[in-house]
Amino acid sequence: MANPVDFYFDYSSPYGYIAAMKIDDLAAKHGRGVDWKPILLGAVFKVTGAQPLPTLPLKGDYAKRDITRSARFHGIAIRYPSKFPIASQAPARAFYWLNDRDPGLARQLAKTLYQAYFVDDRDISSPDATADVAATLGLERDEVLAAISDPAIKERLKSEVDAAIKRGVFGSPFIVIDGEPFWGVDRFDQIERWLTQGPF
Amino acid sequence: MANPVDFYFDYSSPYGYIAAMKIDDLAAKHGRGVDWKPILLGAVFKVTGAQPLPTLPLKGDYAKRDITRSARFHGIAIRYPSKFPIASQAPARAFYWLNDRDPGLARQLAKTLYQAYFVDDRDISSPDATADVAATLGLERDEVLAAISDPAIKERLKSEVDAAIKRGVFGSPFIVIDGEPFWGVDRFDQIERWLTQGPF
Repeated sequence: MANPVDFYFDYSSPYGYIAAMKIDDLAAKHGRGVDWKPILLGAVFKVTGAQPLPTLPLKGDYAKRDITRSARFHGIAIRYPSKFPIASQAPARAFYWLNDRDPGLARQLAKTLYQAYFVDDRDISSPDATADVAATLGLERDEVLAAISDPAIKERLKSEVDAAIKRGVFGSPFIVIDGEPFWGVDRFDQIERWLTQGPF
Repeated sequence: MANPVDFYFDYSSPYGYIAAMKIDDLAAKHGRGVDWKPILLGAVFKVTGAQPLPTLPLKGDYAKRDITRSARFHGIAIRYPSKFPIASQAPARAFYWLNDRDPGLARQLAKTLYQAYFVDDRDISSPDATADVAATLGLERDEVLAAISDPAIKERLKSEVDAAIKRGVFGSPFIVIDGEPFWGVDRFDQIERWLTQGPF
């Protein structure tokens, strides 16, 4: 089987959410797996100097409109969250903890967390909220909370984010296929062509 | 005939160039004309705080790769310019001057200037370079130079840019269809759907 596709995303990223709902199917269609990698845009933006979308003059207003329109375009349910952006350390740590134990369930957790935030308008930034969502998948709430505050897991997330930045990841979603980088759910058309025919 | 599509672009914008090569055909397919409106991203970025792509850490390197790949994806010839970005007052002023006299020829000039910069790697930022390109379309070199330094034309460009910013235009290409804004050549798929079926 060909190399898996690397899928970088931040839990607070609406375009990351749309991509998350589509990436597994797209990759599978071309015989690829997907390696999910939550990152923290806050840490990335310290390097790039970028700012969260809602704070940007003109672009912030446009983004709000474009996010919901893009979701409709891709056939993905979305509700613009009451609080945006949010800190995403807790869900990201929960993901890496679970991914080492059960990658399939970790992916399911990732999608469920994203839907809790972008469909049900639940603020998933706190350890408690993340653990509540994890519990709906049968995970032990206390185990999840322990993982989120575990120094080793905190360090793991930090090193994943550092490695992503070192690789040139500066946004969400960010997809790397055999070394070729694609930024944004609006590159899914190019990703599809790349997976179909290779470099173009 | 339905309202024309408003097409905002900066002559120094590679994604604007790709869009410029496609917008007329796309609009015509749906019975629409196109109102071409060169703008100055430098003035826009003073409002938004944005910076030119090549100066951005990580994103600058990606952009260089994405620009040529996106051109290939859309089947548009491109050579990454030796000097990028460039000031675009001269070609923008020449456009508005000519557009009041002969809109069809102005559009042809716009495309020819874009190709001079993004295919032939000619720096079109100076009045002389812009006049040279205009001359290849049969325009009088001296008339073009006079227009570029005409205070009324300078004021015209300024007011067009101000009006664009007031309307929320913050990038290039930027397309407005019956009040709905679309930023980027990567929104052409959404534009196509909007032109086909209306709001979604």
